[in-house]
Amino acid sequence: VAAAASFGARAVEAVRRGGSPLVVGIDPRREDLPPGVSLDRFCRTLVDLAAEEKCAAVKPQVAFFEALGPAGMASYADLLAYAREQGVLAIADVKRGDIGSTAEAYAAAFFGRRAPFRADAITASPYLGRDSLEPLVGAARADAGGVFVLVRTSNEGARDLQEAAGADGRPFFERAAALVAALGDVDSGYGTVGAVVGATAPEAAARLRALLPKAILLAPGVGAQGARASDLAPFFDARREGALVPVSRAISGAWRTARGGDWKDACRAALRRLRDEIRAALAP
Amino acid sequence: VAAAASFGARAVEAVRRGGSPLVVGIDPRREDLPPGVSLDRFCRTLVDLAAEEKCAAVKPQVAFFEALGPAGMASYADLLAYAREQGVLAIADVKRGDIGSTAEAYAAAFFGRRAPFRADAITASPYLGRDSLEPLVGAARADAGGVFVLVRTSNEGARDLQEAAGADGRPFFERAAALVAALGDVDSGYGTVGAVVGATAPEAAARLRALLPKAILLAPGVGAQGARASDLAPFFDARREGALVPVSRAISGAWRTARGGDWKDACRAALRRLRDEIRAALAP
Repeated sequence: VAAAASFGARAVEAVRRGGSPLVVGIDPRREDLPPGVSLDRFCRTLVDLAAEEKCAAVKPQVAFFEALGPAGMASYADLLAYAREQGVLAIADVKRGDIGSTAEAYAAAFFGRRAPFRADAITASPYLGRDSLEPLVGAARADAGGVFVLVRTSNEGARDLQEAAGADGRPFFERAAALVAALGDVDSGYGTVGAVVGATAPEAAARLRALLPKAILLAPGVGAQGARASDLAPFFDARREGALVPVSRAISGAWRTARGGDWKDACRAALRRLRDEIRAALAP
Repeated sequence: VAAAASFGARAVEAVRRGGSPLVVGIDPRREDLPPGVSLDRFCRTLVDLAAEEKCAAVKPQVAFFEALGPAGMASYADLLAYAREQGVLAIADVKRGDIGSTAEAYAAAFFGRRAPFRADAITASPYLGRDSLEPLVGAARADAGGVFVLVRTSNEGARDLQEAAGADGRPFFERAAALVAALGDVDSGYGTVGAVVGATAPEAAARLRALLPKAILLAPGVGAQGARASDLAPFFDARREGALVPVSRAISGAWRTARGGDWKDACRAALRRLRDEIRAALAP
């Protein structure tokens, strides 16, 4: 039996297959649902769209499901399973992080055959340090899954802590990056541990791409948060691989500004436009 | 109609009423359940114990419920509601933190009359900065609730990021403390925004107690993590108020080492022993 591929290898393969690093973010605010479309239908249709368009992954944001209570969390579990069934990587955007046995409980929630919210990868917060990430990374690795550690986020507030200078003059987010490097796999190539680096921070990305040769970079912020496809080149390696670009509202909310027609077709048109823009930005 | 009290005022009042800052942590690992006792029964009995012993609060850790899937999350919602019904403050240990509209969704999950996981307070992570905390604090304030921001945690990993020195020579956790201060209420007295400061870090606590006069300090780490009641004095103000001391395994797991008898009584005995130790440590 061949060893299972790492999450990094799986992600690179998925991007190659579809020819694009675009990931469909699923952030179902109530006001973003097309009239008459249920939350579950909306989310599943976005997964179908991602599968039809050969996107590498979907990234459902758990907060919008948690806000709906236990029933929302049941929808979240179903959605992750549905994406995996359709052959689309499911990145659970949950930003978990806690100590010791609590981190083990989170790991059991997301990784392994019996995990109720089994995902291909999750996002995690580094504030509590290495021992808070190790149980997540260990469980992910055993399940060919991934952990994207928050390093330099896409929001204004990234200046408050992440961009603050350390005693060595380097921004503080490089300490989070050092955790990513320390937790990474021994093998060459992209591995279990990735990093969240906002597309709004291309200078940070250039530095982090060099510091973290084994980490897939997850680069949110294109679209509603103001980053553009033309900001993305520094996130990719010399082969133009190694990054995923999740876009939420600019795809899933595109039906709002479309003139009539099917809401899914409007989202598909927006997805294709974005994919073309990203391709153009990454062209040699 | 009188203005609702702040969470800080409510917490101080609850501690005065019961004469102790002890909080019952509820971390239901499967192996910690007494034989034949269901998760829901175990958790509710710990709430009953907290109410009977006039503890200020309970602190259920969400990870152990999330690991059980949507049904576990239903138990979590029920448990928070049950604690509130019994007149015990419910601190949801969830360590949430995300940007913009996602933070608003988390706020809607935990605060306000229609929140499915309505809590008196939550824990939150500061890594994403001020704009990630503002929606939580705003929703908490409107519901007389509280937000405990992670500042200096109780684990070994606190050294990795939190204790790293900034360009000003001060440890990085003081930047998180500055966010706590900036988000605090204008009124005097303890307010909406508190700070998590591990009982394993009494030197940090002395500094933070001075920097954050309006923040209730939540000080985990007594018992299983090695901190002792005698480490707690620096967490309290000159009136010996302003801190809460959650203890989990040393109370809820006490039935394991008791010789026979009712499991709840064993937990009660451990709770009373700890309460006496903390009282002795804080005596003038």
